[in-house]
Amino acid sequence: MVDKKLSGAGLRGQSAGETALCTVGKSGSGLTYRGYDVSDLADNTTFEEVAYLLFNGELPNQGQLDEYKVMLRNQRDLPDGLKDVLKLIPKDAHPMDVMRTGCSFLGNIEPETDFSHQNQAANRLLAAFPAIMCYWYRFTHEGVEIDCTTDEDSLGGHFLALLHGKTPSEQHRKVMDVSLILYAEHEFNASTFTARVCASTLSDMFSCVTGAIGSLRGPLHGGANEAAMDMIQKFSSPADAKVQMAGMLERKEKIMGFGHAIYSESDPRNAIIKAWSEKLAQENGDTSLYDISVACEEFMWDSKKLFCNADFFHASAYHFMGIPTKLFTPIFVCSRLTGWAAHVMEQRSNNRIIRPSADYVGPEPRKVSPINQR
Amino acid sequence: MVDKKLSGAGLRGQSAGETALCTVGKSGSGLTYRGYDVSDLADNTTFEEVAYLLFNGELPNQGQLDEYKVMLRNQRDLPDGLKDVLKLIPKDAHPMDVMRTGCSFLGNIEPETDFSHQNQAANRLLAAFPAIMCYWYRFTHEGVEIDCTTDEDSLGGHFLALLHGKTPSEQHRKVMDVSLILYAEHEFNASTFTARVCASTLSDMFSCVTGAIGSLRGPLHGGANEAAMDMIQKFSSPADAKVQMAGMLERKEKIMGFGHAIYSESDPRNAIIKAWSEKLAQENGDTSLYDISVACEEFMWDSKKLFCNADFFHASAYHFMGIPTKLFTPIFVCSRLTGWAAHVMEQRSNNRIIRPSADYVGPEPRKVSPINQR
Repeated sequence: MVDKKLSGAGLRGQSAGETALCTVGKSGSGLTYRGYDVSDLADNTTFEEVAYLLFNGELPNQGQLDEYKVMLRNQRDLPDGLKDVLKLIPKDAHPMDVMRTGCSFLGNIEPETDFSHQNQAANRLLAAFPAIMCYWYRFTHEGVEIDCTTDEDSLGGHFLALLHGKTPSEQHRKVMDVSLILYAEHEFNASTFTARVCASTLSDMFSCVTGAIGSLRGPLHGGANEAAMDMIQKFSSPADAKVQMAGMLERKEKIMGFGHAIYSESDPRNAIIKAWSEKLAQENGDTSLYDISVACEEFMWDSKKLFCNADFFHASAYHFMGIPTKLFTPIFVCSRLTGWAAHVMEQRSNNRIIRPSADYVGPEPRKVSPINQR
Repeated sequence: MVDKKLSGAGLRGQSAGETALCTVGKSGSGLTYRGYDVSDLADNTTFEEVAYLLFNGELPNQGQLDEYKVMLRNQRDLPDGLKDVLKLIPKDAHPMDVMRTGCSFLGNIEPETDFSHQNQAANRLLAAFPAIMCYWYRFTHEGVEIDCTTDEDSLGGHFLALLHGKTPSEQHRKVMDVSLILYAEHEFNASTFTARVCASTLSDMFSCVTGAIGSLRGPLHGGANEAAMDMIQKFSSPADAKVQMAGMLERKEKIMGFGHAIYSESDPRNAIIKAWSEKLAQENGDTSLYDISVACEEFMWDSKKLFCNADFFHASAYHFMGIPTKLFTPIFVCSRLTGWAAHVMEQRSNNRIIRPSADYVGPEPRKVSPINQR
């Protein structure tokens, strides 16, 4: 066996397999899902259509979509055992630990016993994740045991209704839907690659998604929109933002929400969510958080030629919809699940176990000394 | 960015990073942990010394080992919330789903809040895993709420005492200890690589281990000893084993417990566990399961030049100790945790997020059609 040396650490620039799901940063189109540009999808489809596209290869016609949405609606509630588990998780737990545990527990009581059920397992998680997040959040933060079903037509609206306990506005429904589309899929990012490595052992869907949630939890992966929110909330005005960011750069502090490992000139998702953040600001009346965000964008471009990625204007958009910052990354889970599950299905369809080699840099062969001579 | 083509799928033969922890199949030594041959470790150390070695780089002296074992002993019990979760998992759940969920839940109530606590998190899991497995197993299968503490000196003895509710024999303690050493670490196998991908996002120890358990669950990875057990139990005698295996080969059925992705001539762990299985057979009086296993080994070598891997004689060894087959892979978790956690620590010490590229094989760019035209 010949081990090839890496050009860089972290498998950067190394192909780890084939995919028909996504292109990222290909010339001419920033981000495509099965050939469709993400901005075309955000303008002209709904998140349920994108989920269907990722799982099945083609966009649904009206009959297929109606049937799909009814099926998802019928699976939004949680089993009592899962509710009991969520109630056992304390208020100060990391919300991503809650999502990971909820997913893992569901795999015990509704296991994917055969790969022919893989779409059902993925759709069950898609339907149930908003309730897993909101049931725990509202029980531990508000003392309420919510009803996990709503009359909302879309998953985005359903999530907002569960979170706030009231019917969301049409504009809020629309923004959640677009946000879920933008985060749905992104090729071999670390959480998706985690799901594929797990899938390559022929493990079950719940294991793959549980592992992916654990990877998305890391601050180098998910969570950039939460970090962006924490930052912009500290700024009192656009002018203050520029002064404080200059100080952060001088102190070499990490500023989240800018630049990207793959995109070099812009993130195609930014213009879309930025436009929605502006509309939400106008609806809200107080536009200061949006204005501050624009000032941050200008400052980072002028001083470092760094552009906003998908996460930056998500912070203000989510905030305008009354979403607590600690739930930003769990929403990412509700969306990216579609990409993860589609990659699991793709890995299974042409599988070889993912088992790389390593370069050994440890001690030379040595003998165990008796413990009294150590 | 230039994408290098893979020589083979599954990153086979591609280096995905450096490690000082392990060599597998290097010329002159079959399997080493930090430079020590696994047979030397199995003969001359205990599992707690190996865990200490993997986590800290060197074998402990007597004082260090005594202190380490006391610390582990004090962490064997489970918090009440975790016991409640385990009681909510049904009897027919997959035991690896139980381990994954137990690990994930513990991360909610005893989170690793800072990487300076990484050894504590790893040791907590090491001490608690036998109880996670046995508390769920005995509650759901025997209706008993066990005391999760025992007076056993070693983790291997502790596991046997929890499982059987009585003091194990000295020989059984020794075999469990050796078995835990043999399974402790194996370089960049799929579950360990899962843990490293997760660690590379700077996620927490519980997420990394939870993900690794999910990957080990897959039938291409963990579970070979369970499959070997299922097979040898069907054979009535050594002669019957050879006849039936010939039929399996003819029908091209998969026979688990033979050959290895990395080792080409033999698995250095086999001779060690085989010798112990023979001793257990003699202790047991009825040696037939061992004799059948030897017949299988001879047959596979004579007909296919395939050697037993670590899993094959583990099946009979575990069986002689009264361990239910469905717990074989969870025991693997109790052992391999040490390798996973050591790899997480190593990844963190020199990290770059693991984010490979992919070869796109999907549809060309296309436009979304209105839904009534699909």
